Amino acid sequence: TGVRLDLDRARRCGFPEVVYGPGKSSEALVEIFGRLRDERQAALATRVTAEQADSVCSQFSDVIYNAQGRTLRLPGSEQPSVGRVLVITAGTSDRNIAEEALETLAWMHVSAELLVDVGVAGPHRLIEHLDRLDGLDAVVVVAGMEGALPSVVGGWVDCPVIGVPTSVGYGAALGGMAALLGMLNSCASNVTVVNIDAGFKGAYIAGMIAKRRHDATSPV
Amino acid sequence: TGVRLDLDRARRCGFPEVVYGPGKSSEALVEIFGRLRDERQAALATRVTAEQADSVCSQFSDVIYNAQGRTLRLPGSEQPSVGRVLVITAGTSDRNIAEEALETLAWMHVSAELLVDVGVAGPHRLIEHLDRLDGLDAVVVVAGMEGALPSVVGGWVDCPVIGVPTSVGYGAALGGMAALLGMLNSCASNVTVVNIDAGFKGAYIAGMIAKRRHDATSPV
Amino acid sequence: TGVRLDLDRARRCGFPEVVYGPGKSSEALVEIFGRLRDERQAALATRVTAEQADSVCSQFSDVIYNAQGRTLRLPGSEQPSVGRVLVITAGTSDRNIAEEALETLAWMHVSAELLVDVGVAGPHRLIEHLDRLDGLDAVVVVAGMEGALPSVVGGWVDCPVIGVPTSVGYGAALGGMAALLGMLNSCASNVTVVNIDAGFKGAYIAGMIAKRRHDATSPV
Amino acid sequence: TGVRLDLDRARRCGFPEVVYGPGKSSEALVEIFGRLRDERQAALATRVTAEQADSVCSQFSDVIYNAQGRTLRLPGSEQPSVGRVLVITAGTSDRNIAEEALETLAWMHVSAELLVDVGVAGPHRLIEHLDRLDGLDAVVVVAGMEGALPSVVGGWVDCPVIGVPTSVGYGAALGGMAALLGMLNSCASNVTVVNIDAGFKGAYIAGMIAKRRHDATSPV
Amino acid sequence: TGVRLDLDRARRCGFPEVVYGPGKSSEALVEIFGRLRDERQAALATRVTAEQADSVCSQFSDVIYNAQGRTLRLPGSEQPSVGRVLVITAGTSDRNIAEEALETLAWMHVSAELLVDVGVAGPHRLIEHLDRLDGLDAVVVVAGMEGALPSVVGGWVDCPVIGVPTSVGYGAALGGMAALLGMLNSCASNVTVVNIDAGFKGAYIAGMIAKRRHDATSPV
Amino acid sequence: TGVRLDLDRARRCGFPEVVYGPGKSSEALVEIFGRLRDERQAALATRVTAEQADSVCSQFSDVIYNAQGRTLRLPGSEQPSVGRVLVITAGTSDRNIAEEALETLAWMHVSAELLVDVGVAGPHRLIEHLDRLDGLDAVVVVAGMEGALPSVVGGWVDCPVIGVPTSVGYGAALGGMAALLGMLNSCASNVTVVNIDAGFKGAYIAGMIAKRRHDATSPV
Amino acid sequence: TGVRLDLDRARRCGFPEVVYGPGKSSEALVEIFGRLRDERQAALATRVTAEQADSVCSQFSDVIYNAQGRTLRLPGSEQPSVGRVLVITAGTSDRNIAEEALETLAWMHVSAELLVDVGVAGPHRLIEHLDRLDGLDAVVVVAGMEGALPSVVGGWVDCPVIGVPTSVGYGAALGGMAALLGMLNSCASNVTVVNIDAGFKGAYIAGMIAKRRHDATSPV
Amino acid sequence: TGVRLDLDRARRCGFPEVVYGPGKSSEALVEIFGRLRDERQAALATRVTAEQADSVCSQFSDVIYNAQGRTLRLPGSEQPSVGRVLVITAGTSDRNIAEEALETLAWMHVSAELLVDVGVAGPHRLIEHLDRLDGLDAVVVVAGMEGALPSVVGGWVDCPVIGVPTSVGYGAALGGMAALLGMLNSCASNVTVVNIDAGFKGAYIAGMIAKRRHDATSPV
Ligand SMILES: Nc1ncnc2c1ncn2[C@@H]1O[C@H](COP(=O)(O)O)[C@@H](O)[C@H]1O
Ligand SMILES: Nc1ncnc2c1ncn2[C@@H]1O[C@H](COP(=O)(O)O)[C@@H](O)[C@H]1O
Ligand SMILES: Nc1ncnc2c1ncn2[C@@H]1O[C@H](COP(=O)(O)O)[C@@H](O)[C@H]1O
Ligand SMILES: Nc1ncnc2c1ncn2[C@@H]1O[C@H](COP(=O)(O)O)[C@@H](O)[C@H]1O
Ligand SMILES: [Mg+2]
Ligand SMILES: [Mg+2]
Ligand SMILES: [Mg+2]
Ligand SMILES: [Mg+2]
Ligand SMILES: [Mg+2]
Ligand SMILES: [Mg+2]
Ligand SMILES: [Mg+2]
Ligand SMILES: [Mg+2]
Repeated sequence: TGVRLDLDRARRCGFPEVVYGPGKSSEALVEIFGRLRDERQAALATRVTAEQADSVCSQFSDVIYNAQGRTLRLPGSEQPSVGRVLVITAGTSDRNIAEEALETLAWMHVSAELLVDVGVAGPHRLIEHLDRLDGLDAVVVVAGMEGALPSVVGGWVDCPVIGVPTSVGYGAALGGMAALLGMLNSCASNVTVVNIDAGFKGAYIAGMIAKRRHDATSPV
Repeated sequence: TGVRLDLDRARRCGFPEVVYGPGKSSEALVEIFGRLRDERQAALATRVTAEQADSVCSQFSDVIYNAQGRTLRLPGSEQPSVGRVLVITAGTSDRNIAEEALETLAWMHVSAELLVDVGVAGPHRLIEHLDRLDGLDAVVVVAGMEGALPSVVGGWVDCPVIGVPTSVGYGAALGGMAALLGMLNSCASNVTVVNIDAGFKGAYIAGMIAKRRHDATSPV
Repeated sequence: TGVRLDLDRARRCGFPEVVYGPGKSSEALVEIFGRLRDERQAALATRVTAEQADSVCSQFSDVIYNAQGRTLRLPGSEQPSVGRVLVITAGTSDRNIAEEALETLAWMHVSAELLVDVGVAGPHRLIEHLDRLDGLDAVVVVAGMEGALPSVVGGWVDCPVIGVPTSVGYGAALGGMAALLGMLNSCASNVTVVNIDAGFKGAYIAGMIAKRRHDATSPV
Repeated sequence: TGVRLDLDRARRCGFPEVVYGPGKSSEALVEIFGRLRDERQAALATRVTAEQADSVCSQFSDVIYNAQGRTLRLPGSEQPSVGRVLVITAGTSDRNIAEEALETLAWMHVSAELLVDVGVAGPHRLIEHLDRLDGLDAVVVVAGMEGALPSVVGGWVDCPVIGVPTSVGYGAALGGMAALLGMLNSCASNVTVVNIDAGFKGAYIAGMIAKRRHDATSPV
Repeated sequence: TGVRLDLDRARRCGFPEVVYGPGKSSEALVEIFGRLRDERQAALATRVTAEQADSVCSQFSDVIYNAQGRTLRLPGSEQPSVGRVLVITAGTSDRNIAEEALETLAWMHVSAELLVDVGVAGPHRLIEHLDRLDGLDAVVVVAGMEGALPSVVGGWVDCPVIGVPTSVGYGAALGGMAALLGMLNSCASNVTVVNIDAGFKGAYIAGMIAKRRHDATSPV
Repeated sequence: TGVRLDLDRARRCGFPEVVYGPGKSSEALVEIFGRLRDERQAALATRVTAEQADSVCSQFSDVIYNAQGRTLRLPGSEQPSVGRVLVITAGTSDRNIAEEALETLAWMHVSAELLVDVGVAGPHRLIEHLDRLDGLDAVVVVAGMEGALPSVVGGWVDCPVIGVPTSVGYGAALGGMAALLGMLNSCASNVTVVNIDAGFKGAYIAGMIAKRRHDATSPV
Repeated sequence: TGVRLDLDRARRCGFPEVVYGPGKSSEALVEIFGRLRDERQAALATRVTAEQADSVCSQFSDVIYNAQGRTLRLPGSEQPSVGRVLVITAGTSDRNIAEEALETLAWMHVSAELLVDVGVAGPHRLIEHLDRLDGLDAVVVVAGMEGALPSVVGGWVDCPVIGVPTSVGYGAALGGMAALLGMLNSCASNVTVVNIDAGFKGAYIAGMIAKRRHDATSPV
Repeated sequence: TGVRLDLDRARRCGFPEVVYGPGKSSEALVEIFGRLRDERQAALATRVTAEQADSVCSQFSDVIYNAQGRTLRLPGSEQPSVGRVLVITAGTSDRNIAEEALETLAWMHVSAELLVDVGVAGPHRLIEHLDRLDGLDAVVVVAGMEGALPSVVGGWVDCPVIGVPTSVGYGAALGGMAALLGMLNSCASNVTVVNIDAGFKGAYIAGMIAKRRHDATSPV
């Protein structure tokens, strides 16, 4: 099937290679999940189609398909979750990207919470939940349109904020570019940014930060 | 001097034509201010250079030069100010655009207040001043970088918010385009937008709203 | 259904939160309209699909679906309309955005009029209707392609002009960016701008200006 | 001096090659004007610096330097001007580009008139001059900011309108791109466009249309 | 049907208003063609769908539908064609835009010829046809991808060249922007440009130039 | 069918014209392949649809359809392959563009090899294959997303590297513009670039370099 | 001086507000440093001019000016550095941004190392230093042009990589946009991005990650 | 001086690393040239300032400074030039980029010729020189504005054409982006492209092709 998995990546980078769905045949996906399952590795595929999901799930009953997040996940060996990452969405339409982020954190065995629909036009909504912003390892803020939420969140927390701009919006939203540019120019120092709609990447960074903070018995 | 002033504009549009400085000779500016002064009209010129300002002010001692705002203003006949417009800046560097806005409101005989440096990365700074957001006719929000402040202000007030994106920032700020796009995509319904660095225009709209709300003995 | 309505917004901002249709399930919309209907609040949803509309209207017979404007509106308690806002379109194809604007004004209880197809290439068409430009609170100008109409209208009226660029056009229209940029650079001082195709937003600003000018027994 | 003039162009294209100033040494310019002068050809150089102009004019007293239009022109053999082209500017700052256009028409021996500062925000200004729009061969409309003037002019005349967008403006004017895009999307059918600040090109097209309409004793 | 035709345009601009198909109902189109037919005017509609065409043609048998050019044309009163305009395409895929141009010229009663597939990568192809470039009133050059053909044609002819960039190409063609920018920067002085895919506009300018050159018994 | 093949191109440019599929009717394609087959020339058509392929292949059994590469190829007269070109892909999704490249090299009679899925995030994957980078005439590197692979490959080889950016990716990939810009700015001196998804062009350049290096008995 | 420092930020966000130099008067800067010095806080100002630096340093001898990094730093109370952050540059010209990063880490009391000039076109240069990539808390990769280095580094380390695109390059580098887009599309999962030339921000995120990993006696 | 030269590059890539001037101190440059001179290697630095050049040349009398091309070149050991590369410019202003290309070819010991000012608007100029297009190894075409020349040259030659877009032009030339996009979309199959103003890179590719074609006694 012409796919060359980077199986050594877990050793080098801490986590195995994640499968990018687009352009892969269903057979290729089945093969990959089969191989990783045999090696008892956890596995994650993102941006899968319903058709790809069907092929894999009908073969392996322990693979979890999240239709909203467009992910396939093979849980791997049991192990306790560590850390605390909060995923926040600005509006209802940003939910599917948040789901991709949650699946990624589950795959990483990092504890995650979700806070939805607290966009800046209703500023009291976030303030009502300030207590949930305490004691976090990292925050993933998913927001489209003007992408202002990471800056506001960044002003309330003492941990890294990963901004995930989404393609939600129309016209001058330019498919997410407005939100992306906004987040890159955030006047909050603790905001860093990933690609538009990159729920996976935002969560991966956050999860890595959390994991490494809690796993190490005595880091360095 | 080849300048054709639209002298009828005050009748048609409520306020006379404002002079755009760039590309005009100092002589042309002196002539314009002289003519309007003779007719006892108020006058405003924007984006003037220090050199243009010198020429006009050395001729007419009652013309006020605001170096930070780059404006020349001839106060015209005395008349009481009406309304209440608040000009807010996100950061210190947005001040010169705010000055242009304040001069414009002074020229329109609209009462203006200034609140500076309350950018979203210090969210409590705005909240400390929520009382100043009450009873306004309009707000002019001047902000560069990610331009998130109008959305946040928009969520606290019951009047129109005029967003003035500024060219403050670097890199992906794209000379103010990031802030402009952000404001255009604001999820707050009461946010409308003018050109980058257009302190004059933002204040003109706000002043017009205030003036017409208070002037009319019985509108319509 | 995971939707967190900003129910306090009417108190803070003068009008309740408007529902943005995309990405919401039909059940979520039915639930929202049901809740607001129980509280006897007026409600507006924008950019709804025919399918979403069917679900809501088959449940609540008093909800009005405007297919051209893609809106759902629940009229709320009877109350007289105030003010006078004119909605102008440049061409026939801008009509659907004008409809969104008209529905928004109806929801706000602001009187609205419509003037269509008076684009600048037939300059006499607008001039024939100059009388309709008198005594307005605000104008909403809906125009695609080069977006020149707000500037021309701005030169004839003494009230704020809200430019709504549309995605009408092709090639260098860039999905409405040409019209948007044109309006932002308007040489008419009273022109302010909202997002491409944002009929809702343009009307919301205009309606707010009209409402506040007429409602207040004695403002300030 | 490494310059290869296309001396055959007059035969092929009706007019000789025009010299583009940037990147040429003063010596090269002196040589070119000398050569063309020896051959008793008319010559035009555009976008010349004051330094280049000095070198050429100190050598040849019959070369005319238009500092505002940044052109050098050698009139060539006497011959009557034909046709009628109107050059219109939207604002005072567009004047230098209009000067480049006027010099080009003079070099082509085409009669030209100038109408300045009739931008769309003062719509009556153009209407007062409608009589000057009659009986023209072509119009060159020079406008920056939103670039709306060609559309409006296009709606009043029965001849081609050449739009010349200028880099006048700031922020979202994007160095003339807003005006350029606006003109390209003009809803007036008779508007065609040249590059930003291309006064030379706009006038060249207009002059060619005028010349060919009047020169031919019996065309075809 | 809410359409306000600019019926006076023929008097002001020489040709009646052309109907832009998108966003108009089939009924509106039938009504427009019916009205113009009753007044014995020629009519042209562009960018019509097959469905719109069916409705009009099944009603009026003398309306001509050009499916490739997406136009509907009502020939109007018989009258001889004048002038000579050449329409050139760079590649096979530019043909549909050329058809729109040809229909427009037919509607204007201007004689048109077609030369296809002579793109610059086969430079001898154009050279073989240099004789066809003689004695023209104007050339319409339709080209996508790099849009280089107008510059080359411009170097061979003594009349205006109207460049029509097309959206043919992929990747960095950016939907025709590459060709548009190329043509705007043409180093040939006689090249002017219209919008991407604007076969109608390119032909309209060319036809107007031709018509006015030949119609006038004694122009001015 | 209105297609003017540049049949002389093989003499001028070394290889015959390649057929660009989009916008050509199936009949036109059948005719072209028929004509070239009669003349015993090799032929290549790119970006063909399944429908176009069916028409041609059902007529001529010796034409090879590569569905993944979207090409039709007529092998022409037998002749040995020369040279050595390596086609490398960064990810699995770049495969279809690599197939277009391989078909082009086969049509040119240049020997080609394929190395897939060695993107920079797994740096050891390329290093394991460094031996395959020896003794090449040229490398074609097909990569989407950040398009970093050509720079890395360029640092290991002593021959030209042709970068083919692909539209693989989402969000800020901007349809391949990110990869294109990346490759254009490559800090490796031996990297040159073709259009996004232009597998044909990348291979054509590489093949031409290889062919000319090996064909000439004694070049110059 | 009109500056409203967010003095509470250290409590909320872990570190005090950093001063953004542009647009601030020298007096304002002196006042700020004076105030923070009185409170025995550490202080950092970025993007300061030589003139601003002179004013501050001539007043307070313990403030350190880094001319290459354009920073002013007041060390504050002595305290041991923790963690291990590596700052890598692709080329020599990226050094000034790396200096801004190093000053930021010094101000945060985080241990930092520097590895310069290991761009991807000399791939062995990074490989020679692979040992320095072990045991890090985070890496800050500063790179202009194609911005490929973060992806390559990302493939070798098990910690977060903060990509800082720089404006180094010309032409299609688009002032750093090419590098920015490249990094956003990185196929390495652990790469996150900050604004162009934002050495401060890249280091702030990295420093925060390091600090929080080592400071906490027992996190959560 | 913090510069880490990739001294192994000659072995890996066939030619040593070229020095990029911007951001390097004069001392660093002197040191680099000194070191390479000691090793009797040829050396090339590009984009050097007059000041940098002075420092190096006053130290080493055998280093050649090309002020127009902004290069410093140390010839290295004598060796005969091979191959034949033609450098073509479209206009006079493209000359400085052509000089950079010529210096690069001289440094590579590849024979180069120059043909200037043969832009497409004077199509006969290139045709007069068709004989010079025979027997080449590669062509470097340097062109700004619309960048059409590589396509035309590509149609006449049987070797690779390296297009070097330049920043010559104004307005919609967008600093060379118009020429770059044009060349990328070239309909000539043998055109490949490098960065804007990248005379060095264009020549490097061409020189490498020429060198490898002639050097090899028996390639592969
Ligand atoms: N058509 C529209 N355009 C822009 N904003 C809208 C529109 N309709 C509703 N909104 C805003 O979108 C927000 C709701 O987003 P959500 O939470 O996704 O439903 C509210 O703040 C509304 O003010
Ligand atoms: N170099 C920098 N880049 C981006 N943000 C910065 C930089 N330096 C300081 N800041 C932020 O800018 C804000 C201060 O802006 P101001 O009020 O204009 O001084 C603070 O929130 C800082 O976190
Ligand atoms: N996939 C392709 N990408 C770019 N150019 C191509 C491609 N396939 C063929 N061509 C070129 O397109 C031209 C043919 O265009 P046309 O006349 O429309 O068939 C030829 O000059 C080919 O070199
Ligand atoms: N201001 C101008 N804008 C655009 N093109 C010009 C201008 N002035 C001269 N040209 C054209 O530039 C070409 C000369 O370029 P060059 O060989 O660099 O002198 C001629 O074909 C002229 O038609
Ligand atoms: Mg919501
Ligand atoms: Mg501040
Ligand atoms: Mg109409
Ligand atoms: Mg004026
Ligand atoms: Mg063809
Ligand atoms: Mg892979
Ligand atoms: Mg280096
Ligand atoms: Mg020349």
